[in-house]
Amino acid sequence: MSSTDRPHVARLLISCPDKRGIVAAVSQFLYAHGANILDSDQHSTDPEGGRFFMRMEFHLDGLDLTRTQFEKAFGDVVATPFEMTWRVWYAMEPKRMAILVSKYDHCLLDLLWRHRRGELDATVPLVASNHDDLRADTESFGVPFHLVTVEKGRKEEAEARLLDLLAGQCDLVVLARYMQILSGDFLQKVGVPVINIHHSFLPAFVGANPYRAAFQRGVKIIGATAHYVTEELDAGPIIEQDVARVSHNDGPDAMTRIGRDIERAVLARAVKAHLEDRVLVYGNKTVVF
Amino acid sequence: MSSTDRPHVARLLISCPDKRGIVAAVSQFLYAHGANILDSDQHSTDPEGGRFFMRMEFHLDGLDLTRTQFEKAFGDVVATPFEMTWRVWYAMEPKRMAILVSKYDHCLLDLLWRHRRGELDATVPLVASNHDDLRADTESFGVPFHLVTVEKGRKEEAEARLLDLLAGQCDLVVLARYMQILSGDFLQKVGVPVINIHHSFLPAFVGANPYRAAFQRGVKIIGATAHYVTEELDAGPIIEQDVARVSHNDGPDAMTRIGRDIERAVLARAVKAHLEDRVLVYGNKTVVF
Amino acid sequence: MSSTDRPHVARLLISCPDKRGIVAAVSQFLYAHGANILDSDQHSTDPEGGRFFMRMEFHLDGLDLTRTQFEKAFGDVVATPFEMTWRVWYAMEPKRMAILVSKYDHCLLDLLWRHRRGELDATVPLVASNHDDLRADTESFGVPFHLVTVEKGRKEEAEARLLDLLAGQCDLVVLARYMQILSGDFLQKVGVPVINIHHSFLPAFVGANPYRAAFQRGVKIIGATAHYVTEELDAGPIIEQDVARVSHNDGPDAMTRIGRDIERAVLARAVKAHLEDRVLVYGNKTVVF
Amino acid sequence: MSSTDRPHVARLLISCPDKRGIVAAVSQFLYAHGANILDSDQHSTDPEGGRFFMRMEFHLDGLDLTRTQFEKAFGDVVATPFEMTWRVWYAMEPKRMAILVSKYDHCLLDLLWRHRRGELDATVPLVASNHDDLRADTESFGVPFHLVTVEKGRKEEAEARLLDLLAGQCDLVVLARYMQILSGDFLQKVGVPVINIHHSFLPAFVGANPYRAAFQRGVKIIGATAHYVTEELDAGPIIEQDVARVSHNDGPDAMTRIGRDIERAVLARAVKAHLEDRVLVYGNKTVVF
Repeated sequence: MSSTDRPHVARLLISCPDKRGIVAAVSQFLYAHGANILDSDQHSTDPEGGRFFMRMEFHLDGLDLTRTQFEKAFGDVVATPFEMTWRVWYAMEPKRMAILVSKYDHCLLDLLWRHRRGELDATVPLVASNHDDLRADTESFGVPFHLVTVEKGRKEEAEARLLDLLAGQCDLVVLARYMQILSGDFLQKVGVPVINIHHSFLPAFVGANPYRAAFQRGVKIIGATAHYVTEELDAGPIIEQDVARVSHNDGPDAMTRIGRDIERAVLARAVKAHLEDRVLVYGNKTVVF
Repeated sequence: MSSTDRPHVARLLISCPDKRGIVAAVSQFLYAHGANILDSDQHSTDPEGGRFFMRMEFHLDGLDLTRTQFEKAFGDVVATPFEMTWRVWYAMEPKRMAILVSKYDHCLLDLLWRHRRGELDATVPLVASNHDDLRADTESFGVPFHLVTVEKGRKEEAEARLLDLLAGQCDLVVLARYMQILSGDFLQKVGVPVINIHHSFLPAFVGANPYRAAFQRGVKIIGATAHYVTEELDAGPIIEQDVARVSHNDGPDAMTRIGRDIERAVLARAVKAHLEDRVLVYGNKTVVF
Repeated sequence: MSSTDRPHVARLLISCPDKRGIVAAVSQFLYAHGANILDSDQHSTDPEGGRFFMRMEFHLDGLDLTRTQFEKAFGDVVATPFEMTWRVWYAMEPKRMAILVSKYDHCLLDLLWRHRRGELDATVPLVASNHDDLRADTESFGVPFHLVTVEKGRKEEAEARLLDLLAGQCDLVVLARYMQILSGDFLQKVGVPVINIHHSFLPAFVGANPYRAAFQRGVKIIGATAHYVTEELDAGPIIEQDVARVSHNDGPDAMTRIGRDIERAVLARAVKAHLEDRVLVYGNKTVVF
Repeated sequence: MSSTDRPHVARLLISCPDKRGIVAAVSQFLYAHGANILDSDQHSTDPEGGRFFMRMEFHLDGLDLTRTQFEKAFGDVVATPFEMTWRVWYAMEPKRMAILVSKYDHCLLDLLWRHRRGELDATVPLVASNHDDLRADTESFGVPFHLVTVEKGRKEEAEARLLDLLAGQCDLVVLARYMQILSGDFLQKVGVPVINIHHSFLPAFVGANPYRAAFQRGVKIIGATAHYVTEELDAGPIIEQDVARVSHNDGPDAMTRIGRDIERAVLARAVKAHLEDRVLVYGNKTVVF
């Protein structure tokens, strides 16, 4: 899709203290300025003193204001009085999604396949990896591939090189089984959300080798978890999870094989939700509309 | 819960041709009259010329109008201009749910257990059956049990007796594995929605003995379907479905056993959604908020 | 089912070091003595030096030995040479299942109802509880109910009373949401397997209030786990698990409600598998045939 | 994996009238000739007069007979007396799997990717299609691609060309969303099993456009079905099925997108089971070990 083909649609994301009149104020403002609401979702943690979340998708075609005017007016008339944290996203400007990967191909390929098929509304400016294994796969999709090796004890250098590649070049970083732990410093500097896929049903089996740990504990179900990355390992806000049944017949290798299918599906759903501005983070949790 | 304990909450259900300004008009009206919106869901089959559906749950405590005034004003100011089909339900007035059953106890018991536990916001004025088997079970919950036998060739009589019991006494009839087909005449006269549980994944295996049919076809998954009853057998609007995996080890008896767990769960979820006014019917389909 | 109606079926459970010829030896022995094999399952952790598990179900009608002769001969001819841990169970002698419960009714009701339907091949000699709430429910199924209160600081006394009730009177104890932690001393003295249902997807959310913990972590899926009880809390061999999807709309109360349905289903499946001698424990894990 | 790396493992598949002594005879024969049983599954439709199915996987290393000797001896000593239909498959000789596809890439890509990962123990001699769209994708996996267009009214010609490509060149044909109906004549001549993926939960929504039909019926769950192809459209023995939940928000396009993930997973599981000789067909049903 070229940008001129993309729908002239905006998505308004709001978070504020819950009180009366929010929906009326927002919908009245949009209606008065000619925006046609296409979709609307809301959630309140508690109508009495809780926090209110809203996602409104609306068509821009009838709007009687420029984007700048619209955002200024909305801020003055609606957002400020209700103490809103808010942002407008425009579907005409798809997010730029950079992908980091190591050696496992399943999550990367699934994202690239889905992207090519039009399931993920994003551009993919680059794939970066600490190994060269997935260069040909990546380049066959016309996506640039960058090798950024991480030498022992020189992680800072690697992160600096990654930051050079990523800073200002993407709106989202996806860790598609990237087997390096990113430092808090990196996360701060990269300045965009980072989504990771962890190959367990968090909070069970935090850390390395979760399938082995699951096998040793003798669980009957394994899972995968997509979450925003924070400084604390495997503890960021969960976006999506899913599971599959295993039995005594399934050793760590079979779990790894079965788990691949869950990992790629869960990561794809989380990325899709993020790209469509359906995920709001509050504290260490998410609202997914 | 006595009626004075029930939340002072109303639910507004709307269906109308989609056009601009609906959300603004409804939310503005509620806000202007002091109603605090607790929850809101909407759906449009197509923002251009489609049909719009909405469910708004709001607190009545701050309302500056009586119920009658409120409904009159809403009709005049909002509903009529937008050509809405609409209704307000009040949580203080739980629906009266009559249950029809034959010999299988699992769906009946599950509804009665859930009702006693407070999961289903309804009263149960009566259970009626064409067999006496479940009298003791029903009465142990303090619910009146009526035997209405259906003699061969005299179904009309039985339906007349059922109508005497039900007409004006309930807001919903639940067929909890009631093994008689209700006539179109009965459905019209009873005048309230009727929810049935069919023991297959409709539209597969319409009619009698679906587990046997599923076994003979060699399916690997069986299911159950809760739907509103219409004159056409097993063809009414579907509210909820679920499935379970089976294997070559499972004959018709095992399928029947496994299926029981799906049937009771699916029926309970459908009934709960209906009681909370989450189901809107259009054509032969449902929107379930 | 009276004992004379029960199928004349035996189940042979075997665990031994894996090596060639086990299946041949067992099946040859059974065939030679006239037993008709109805079902057979086997599992090896590793054909080279691993452990071998087997469950064989066979009809006793053609057997040319008495039970005592059969068990003696099998031990001498097959079990000893292969260093087997083994046991024969007879379907004519259903297991006696005692149930401990506190205040939540859903697991207890489900077990008693399934037992009445004939889904669980066991007798239920008694239900014991530290609260009197579920007496009427229990007694309506014709099962004796015993109140064994646990006074603060006097848990030992309560366990002694429980042991008086249970010792020698049951082959299995089921904790159907029994909210007391049983001491290692109790577990040793009761001398039969104890199955517990934990209301989380173990090993996530060990300990008290797992739904609250799940809510706080923001998981998108909740679960329940049935396991044999060992001295280490929530760490015994897992028999069965299942899960359900939740969203940001589901607070701890909704999770508790949704979780009830998983708990009762998981516990019932685990108990059924145990009663049919389908579960073999090795180390801290299970093989479930 | 080169053929010399492949495990020296054979799989014996048996179907015969159920009677006493089958397991003993088979396992005794294998043991006597030095075969180490790795895995064994059995199923009986009815121990009294039913049909018995068995799959035994055993190591060939210790075998004291050549393949020819082994098959001859087994036939004489075991198979003939028990009236067995039987076959031995050798893991060293992976099946040759030809794939037919039209324009949708998801099933094809998933099979080729799984094959490359080593999940599917087969060779892929060729992909054939009635469109040229997936040539580059196929060839990037090093697999030959053949365009066999089907011109209107000249289907016979196309089938003849396909037969030229396939006859004697493959042990299995997989229809990975091949949108042409194969004639009974073709099925007979190709002489190997043909596995199709149908994009509905059969027997619901037989025929074309099942997602549109599912949308129109208002189902809450969609599915996919992998089955062996027979002359009767969408009616062959089912190997595997799976489902996903949909809601009123999901139109035919969303169902198609959600369905793609089910289709590729179901087809891959069915193909994997077939390649590992886990599927036995009887009548219009399957036993899947």
